[in-house]
Amino acid sequence: MKKKIRVVQFGVGPIGASIARLMRQKSSIEIVGAIDKDPAKAGHDLGEITGATDGPWGIHVFGDTAEALKKPVDVVIHSTSSYLPSVMDQLLECLAAGCCIVSTCEELAYPFRKHPALSKKLDEAAKDEGVALVGTGVNPGFVMDKLVLTLSAVSQRVDFAKAVRIVDASKRRLPLQKKIGAGMTPEEFRAQVSAGVIKHHGLPESIAMVADGLGLRLDDISETIDPVIAEETVKTEFLEVSPGQVAGVHQVGRGTSGGKEKVFMELKMYVGAKHPADTIELKGEPNLTLTIPGGTHGDVATAAVAVNAIPAILAAPAGLQTSRELPLKFFPPEENA
Amino acid sequence: MKKKIRVVQFGVGPIGASIARLMRQKSSIEIVGAIDKDPAKAGHDLGEITGATDGPWGIHVFGDTAEALKKPVDVVIHSTSSYLPSVMDQLLECLAAGCCIVSTCEELAYPFRKHPALSKKLDEAAKDEGVALVGTGVNPGFVMDKLVLTLSAVSQRVDFAKAVRIVDASKRRLPLQKKIGAGMTPEEFRAQVSAGVIKHHGLPESIAMVADGLGLRLDDISETIDPVIAEETVKTEFLEVSPGQVAGVHQVGRGTSGGKEKVFMELKMYVGAKHPADTIELKGEPNLTLTIPGGTHGDVATAAVAVNAIPAILAAPAGLQTSRELPLKFFPPEENA
Repeated sequence: MKKKIRVVQFGVGPIGASIARLMRQKSSIEIVGAIDKDPAKAGHDLGEITGATDGPWGIHVFGDTAEALKKPVDVVIHSTSSYLPSVMDQLLECLAAGCCIVSTCEELAYPFRKHPALSKKLDEAAKDEGVALVGTGVNPGFVMDKLVLTLSAVSQRVDFAKAVRIVDASKRRLPLQKKIGAGMTPEEFRAQVSAGVIKHHGLPESIAMVADGLGLRLDDISETIDPVIAEETVKTEFLEVSPGQVAGVHQVGRGTSGGKEKVFMELKMYVGAKHPADTIELKGEPNLTLTIPGGTHGDVATAAVAVNAIPAILAAPAGLQTSRELPLKFFPPEENA
Repeated sequence: MKKKIRVVQFGVGPIGASIARLMRQKSSIEIVGAIDKDPAKAGHDLGEITGATDGPWGIHVFGDTAEALKKPVDVVIHSTSSYLPSVMDQLLECLAAGCCIVSTCEELAYPFRKHPALSKKLDEAAKDEGVALVGTGVNPGFVMDKLVLTLSAVSQRVDFAKAVRIVDASKRRLPLQKKIGAGMTPEEFRAQVSAGVIKHHGLPESIAMVADGLGLRLDDISETIDPVIAEETVKTEFLEVSPGQVAGVHQVGRGTSGGKEKVFMELKMYVGAKHPADTIELKGEPNLTLTIPGGTHGDVATAAVAVNAIPAILAAPAGLQTSRELPLKFFPPEENA
């Protein structure tokens, strides 16, 4: 029997909990602990905190990272924040403990453009310890970048890449519906955007990854955030949005070269979205379109991508990796890495 | 300036010619020679043989492999046959010369099940020389296997995988239209199937790759080949098919475990196909569907995948690789591996 992969879950919010529950389904993974500084979680059992039906699991949630990493750990799954600067200390501490990391931090998915110095620091720290780390998830990390690049394997020439994601937020959790501004007035929405509260992170990261992967040399990446205004009343399990109120968020990212648009990415995430889908388009030789009707469910898919990345990060060369280079696929429940 | 990748094209049939023309568009590739035993090709210039508008290229087509590989070669692109046993000597000679290989030989795409001894021999020969080889193309190699596995990265659980490819052969070259039996009587078609002439190779390879990648343990892989009968007259540039005649081929492959179907693959390639598309379906958590409307053009895409695999095979660990593990994406025209 092969040795199990010893994993620590860092961050037990909704995504971290979903990741932990999924890891419990893999016989080749042993969750040896979790980390969360929240006093409501630290000191408790991970199974209870994640709302698992088969809890308690006998797995301790530590408030202190060093405590959690005292015993040998192969991989840390990290999901605490979207911002790379705010998680640098967390990541560096895990690397220093000799752990590989799969993080859902959106800014880590392709950090070279926005955070070159931090990227270098992480890469060096990982190489010093002979371990690898990657930022990934469904978006950024998969549907608007990895999948675009994978499709491009059948291209003889690529001039332009486009990815559009339309997500119906109606069936998503309340925090997400609030995070996208559902039920706000347009003015409230604008204020929340200015305050940096409303924003899906990752479009610039996906654009940079795709452009670099396709050899489309960009000199600018820009982004806009606007509200989707409800045209009719939308009721979800949690809230009601009236016509004229905000139903959600509409983000557009553009990568240009010499004033010419080379990469276009659009995310519409709102309650009541009619035709949710992920769509990719490559213009070149040949022109190609790929569609996932219904789209990929953000929370379910992000947990899946993070857990499925475990074998790939263990097999990867030391250093800062991205999903651009990692072969990503389903991690079978009864297989060792 | 980085050193160019020195490539030899082995086999200058329609696919080999298409590959060679595509490689000429990559500034980081230098085609240093070609190999083809056909006396109509050997001794001539590759640019002239491939029908390139900018020929001659000053690139020699050798009749003899050893001659072609006398100078240092980084990668051989190999496209001579669908059958692994008939190309073993060719592959081994290239490996012995220290070349990495990207081959379009369908049986090499995932040869472990059908040809375990030959797989082992190739793996060992490649490792002895510190080089890597892979069999790839659009199908097998990409659309019914690599893309299926890539999509599975967002899966929490996969119970069943399906890939359906509907190809309109009307706009394809005459040899392909003949190869699929277009214009034959059903009896002629059956006879050609029995004689092993009519067959698209690769479904069992794709099924095995997908099943292994998803951890779906198969105990049987079966395959059927039937004619698609024309219901109305179909005219192509090259031939005419009357109602009742064969329009093309319909192949179904099934992978089962304990009598239960786990992988289903279907290929319909015929003149006059109405809604050509590549479709992938994963059943599990969540259920997922992916469609490429219009599908991926076989010849264009196979040449693309082969050339795009060059950086990946150069970066791969020594040994026999498959597209299951190689990160495949577009190879930008002005990038070095």
